[in-house]
Amino acid sequence: MEVGVIGVGRMGQAMARNLIKAGHTVHLYDPVVAPLRALEKDGGRIAASAAEAFRGDAVISMLPNDDAMRGAFMAGDLPPQGSKTIHINCATASVACAQDLTARHKERGVPYLAACVWGRPDAAAAAKLSIVVAGDGRAIDKVQPLFDVLGQRTSRVGDEPYKANVAKIAGNLMVAAAIEAIGEAAALVRKYGIPATDFLPIVVKALFDVPVYRGYADAIAKGEYEPPGFDLVLGLKDVRLALAAGEKMNVPLPFASVLRDAFLDAIANGDGNKDWAAIALGAARRAGLD
Amino acid sequence: MEVGVIGVGRMGQAMARNLIKAGHTVHLYDPVVAPLRALEKDGGRIAASAAEAFRGDAVISMLPNDDAMRGAFMAGDLPPQGSKTIHINCATASVACAQDLTARHKERGVPYLAACVWGRPDAAAAAKLSIVVAGDGRAIDKVQPLFDVLGQRTSRVGDEPYKANVAKIAGNLMVAAAIEAIGEAAALVRKYGIPATDFLPIVVKALFDVPVYRGYADAIAKGEYEPPGFDLVLGLKDVRLALAAGEKMNVPLPFASVLRDAFLDAIANGDGNKDWAAIALGAARRAGLD
Amino acid sequence: MEVGVIGVGRMGQAMARNLIKAGHTVHLYDPVVAPLRALEKDGGRIAASAAEAFRGDAVISMLPNDDAMRGAFMAGDLPPQGSKTIHINCATASVACAQDLTARHKERGVPYLAACVWGRPDAAAAAKLSIVVAGDGRAIDKVQPLFDVLGQRTSRVGDEPYKANVAKIAGNLMVAAAIEAIGEAAALVRKYGIPATDFLPIVVKALFDVPVYRGYADAIAKGEYEPPGFDLVLGLKDVRLALAAGEKMNVPLPFASVLRDAFLDAIANGDGNKDWAAIALGAARRAGLD
Amino acid sequence: MEVGVIGVGRMGQAMARNLIKAGHTVHLYDPVVAPLRALEKDGGRIAASAAEAFRGDAVISMLPNDDAMRGAFMAGDLPPQGSKTIHINCATASVACAQDLTARHKERGVPYLAACVWGRPDAAAAAKLSIVVAGDGRAIDKVQPLFDVLGQRTSRVGDEPYKANVAKIAGNLMVAAAIEAIGEAAALVRKYGIPATDFLPIVVKALFDVPVYRGYADAIAKGEYEPPGFDLVLGLKDVRLALAAGEKMNVPLPFASVLRDAFLDAIANGDGNKDWAAIALGAARRAGLD
Repeated sequence: MEVGVIGVGRMGQAMARNLIKAGHTVHLYDPVVAPLRALEKDGGRIAASAAEAFRGDAVISMLPNDDAMRGAFMAGDLPPQGSKTIHINCATASVACAQDLTARHKERGVPYLAACVWGRPDAAAAAKLSIVVAGDGRAIDKVQPLFDVLGQRTSRVGDEPYKANVAKIAGNLMVAAAIEAIGEAAALVRKYGIPATDFLPIVVKALFDVPVYRGYADAIAKGEYEPPGFDLVLGLKDVRLALAAGEKMNVPLPFASVLRDAFLDAIANGDGNKDWAAIALGAARRAGLD
Repeated sequence: MEVGVIGVGRMGQAMARNLIKAGHTVHLYDPVVAPLRALEKDGGRIAASAAEAFRGDAVISMLPNDDAMRGAFMAGDLPPQGSKTIHINCATASVACAQDLTARHKERGVPYLAACVWGRPDAAAAAKLSIVVAGDGRAIDKVQPLFDVLGQRTSRVGDEPYKANVAKIAGNLMVAAAIEAIGEAAALVRKYGIPATDFLPIVVKALFDVPVYRGYADAIAKGEYEPPGFDLVLGLKDVRLALAAGEKMNVPLPFASVLRDAFLDAIANGDGNKDWAAIALGAARRAGLD
Repeated sequence: MEVGVIGVGRMGQAMARNLIKAGHTVHLYDPVVAPLRALEKDGGRIAASAAEAFRGDAVISMLPNDDAMRGAFMAGDLPPQGSKTIHINCATASVACAQDLTARHKERGVPYLAACVWGRPDAAAAAKLSIVVAGDGRAIDKVQPLFDVLGQRTSRVGDEPYKANVAKIAGNLMVAAAIEAIGEAAALVRKYGIPATDFLPIVVKALFDVPVYRGYADAIAKGEYEPPGFDLVLGLKDVRLALAAGEKMNVPLPFASVLRDAFLDAIANGDGNKDWAAIALGAARRAGLD
Repeated sequence: MEVGVIGVGRMGQAMARNLIKAGHTVHLYDPVVAPLRALEKDGGRIAASAAEAFRGDAVISMLPNDDAMRGAFMAGDLPPQGSKTIHINCATASVACAQDLTARHKERGVPYLAACVWGRPDAAAAAKLSIVVAGDGRAIDKVQPLFDVLGQRTSRVGDEPYKANVAKIAGNLMVAAAIEAIGEAAALVRKYGIPATDFLPIVVKALFDVPVYRGYADAIAKGEYEPPGFDLVLGLKDVRLALAAGEKMNVPLPFASVLRDAFLDAIANGDGNKDWAAIALGAARRAGLD
């Protein structure tokens, strides 16, 4: 297929490379040039603008936040009026932004899907993403071959694109909650003289032996939060998306509220640029540790 | 070896059966007779009293709560003065109770270990428990063959028995937190028209594919909380143990605090005898669902 | 003085009337006509537009929310370029909106003050408001006679207008916290068979004998939340302003987080159009009462 | 009347002195001798034991906590079998302890009242306590003259003594909540460059002009927490009483949960011996202040 990719940060880059490897013709755009050059060597084609990359059978966009998405697809020429290119938005948008983007594409007659992904850049590189997609079923059918290249499984959660965003946001909340739970448990055992490096591997092996827990428990046990795999300030953004989604539909989310305060505490105390697992430092600090 | 087992509820029973099967001589005591009879058929020997079961190389006790443990081992003739039988307490005791039991056994010169287990009765039956043990290392060495019969892995967390209890309590807090996180995420997606039966299997498969999450997500997705695998009122007890352990050493545990209120809400609203995953009903109720 | 008043809802109306009574020439604007007619009878002058009311020595604006303020003063002709009319914004704006309005007025060379008020419409009518003002000190000096007409005391909190908004938001958070505290205390005593109508008057008289507590305790004791003095959905807006202000500067506010969930619970369960004291219904509901 | 007073700490001392001044014959007991000597100079009579002070028309006890009350009145000779002396317990007992004491006095045929007081030692000295009493109405009638000497108002909340304890506990929760609310508001305004010494007097004067708020706001504004008026560790005890009372009847108390964590944070970070208003230091610390 002929595919555009708009946004080649760490995730977008890995996804684009897999599409190229799979033999698709891939047009790439990003305001930052370096990753484009790298992908060009792999066989990608550099587009001069987002508009130039918005063509072919489908365009995948992977932008960092609502503002970037609104800037790219709400304010200017995109999506191109009447285009048949299926826009697959893989970014974590807020529900409100997802709904605005859906309306915008409808107005312009352009097919729009939200296809959120779980997995870090290394999972993206290994084509092991989990993809949750929502939007028109026939459009999804058409681009399913792309999803098959990008991830190991694709799940559909409805006809309205925002539902994929809600699912992604809810899943991210569960991940953040796991981190806080690890952090509180670690603070507790440490106050009783059990090193977190003793306790966490045991409990993870016994009960939570999946990459999410393994990775964060390892970081928290060792107190290693740099370089960040996912910035703490971005973690706060994800918690905010959950709180905003909850607020829109009147869903109290007490764990998300606790998380919000934990992230703010972390940022206020200088940990904002560490990995988001560093909220565990706050749990320790509040217990008088360190 | 010659082994006593005091307390043959659902967990103790399964553990005792594995010891019998492994060829050990097992003396059994419980105030309830039915499970004793069943184990007798398998080759166990019924003791007339807890004191009679407290003999041989080791005695495993598996009592339901602090009061029962204090009643059995703090107030009367047990542990027998000067006995060489290694007492392996497998129950989830509070830190305070664990410390009192340790002191008591020391006074009476009886070796005492805390060996907490993770796993439901079916895991106990399958000898797939995870065991976390604390106490004198040589005593642990002696009874390691028993642990090898009961579980698939044994981890040591220190010389003071209470440390095993702290580890168990901290791990249980992580399990309870996982349930609440699932419940909040489910309430959120449902308000956006995504059935929990669609969402939860996706997120579990993508991120949390372990029995703890699979089981509770399945119950919450289907709204099936009866018969309870673990009673909600007992879940509150576990949260209380975490809060008490935190309080003793000044460890704030905001997730445990949220959980406490979630359990009280559930009990106040009639869900106390359901499975503890039913705290998700409260998350839904507070969001105006159902 | 010659004064404009933009926005004559319940608060603005009462304030405008006092200015008229005090002998000031008052130009009034509101998109809703009825209150304008009533004020005209008292001696006010109806302006055909917000722009027409923005003249004289000072203009007081009292609009319901950020969107209305942005619509009126950020998007169109107001504030008039180079006007010497001192704009006194009495509404509860978000910190972000307050800062944007300050910048906008600076660009246009128009003096801008934020003067937030505490007090219900009846206090406004009785000229018993408490006013907290921020902005250029000389501008405040000039309009102090107006404040003297509107309230019983004026306090200054700095040169940057947004500081008055922060103070107002922080004070409102304290009021909301008082309501939740009353609600939890009432649920607790009720479960022990003490009627809230017995308990609350005692504790208010003993410890909290001020209108804020008297009023909300009375409503909660009697369970009378209609007609609302202040809508619960507006209460949520105030809590959101506190959370947003905290988020902007990384201030965890755990009470505000609990309040947010309490308001969402109330709205999700059908109490959104009652008085904001009705969050106490949720405290009771979660305790299984009623 | 002839009255005993058991426990002459700061509160009991002030109360005893007022009884002496009012012309009553007062028998005093406390394990600490110094305050007894002082009261003897004022006309009190020193009893050699609690039992010797338990006589006459009524005995007022004012002991520091459940353990002291259980030690004095549950374990030994007191209350004296068949005594007609009305025992007025003025201390803040847990609900469980209050119920046990009631049962014990009933068994021994001794009239028992719970009469909890609000007010600091200076209010006790000025006879300005607020008294909330529960128990048999005729017994209360008999000792009402004593209450009239001790406080400025007495309120009755039922026939079962524990109800006075519940009321006291619920009221104390409201006080603790006020402190936390002040602390959060102060942290918020400070991060925006408004000194707490500017903000707090304004908001207190405008909305919360009662001694509870005035006193704590003043301490928090100035950051003066020593010497403590009420020890932070005792404040945690009060919050625990509220949580325990809530747990007993399944009442979620989210503010109490937040308070618990705030107190633990404070103690873990070295503020346990300061005034309980020092939980505001934690709110500031979590916001990165100081």
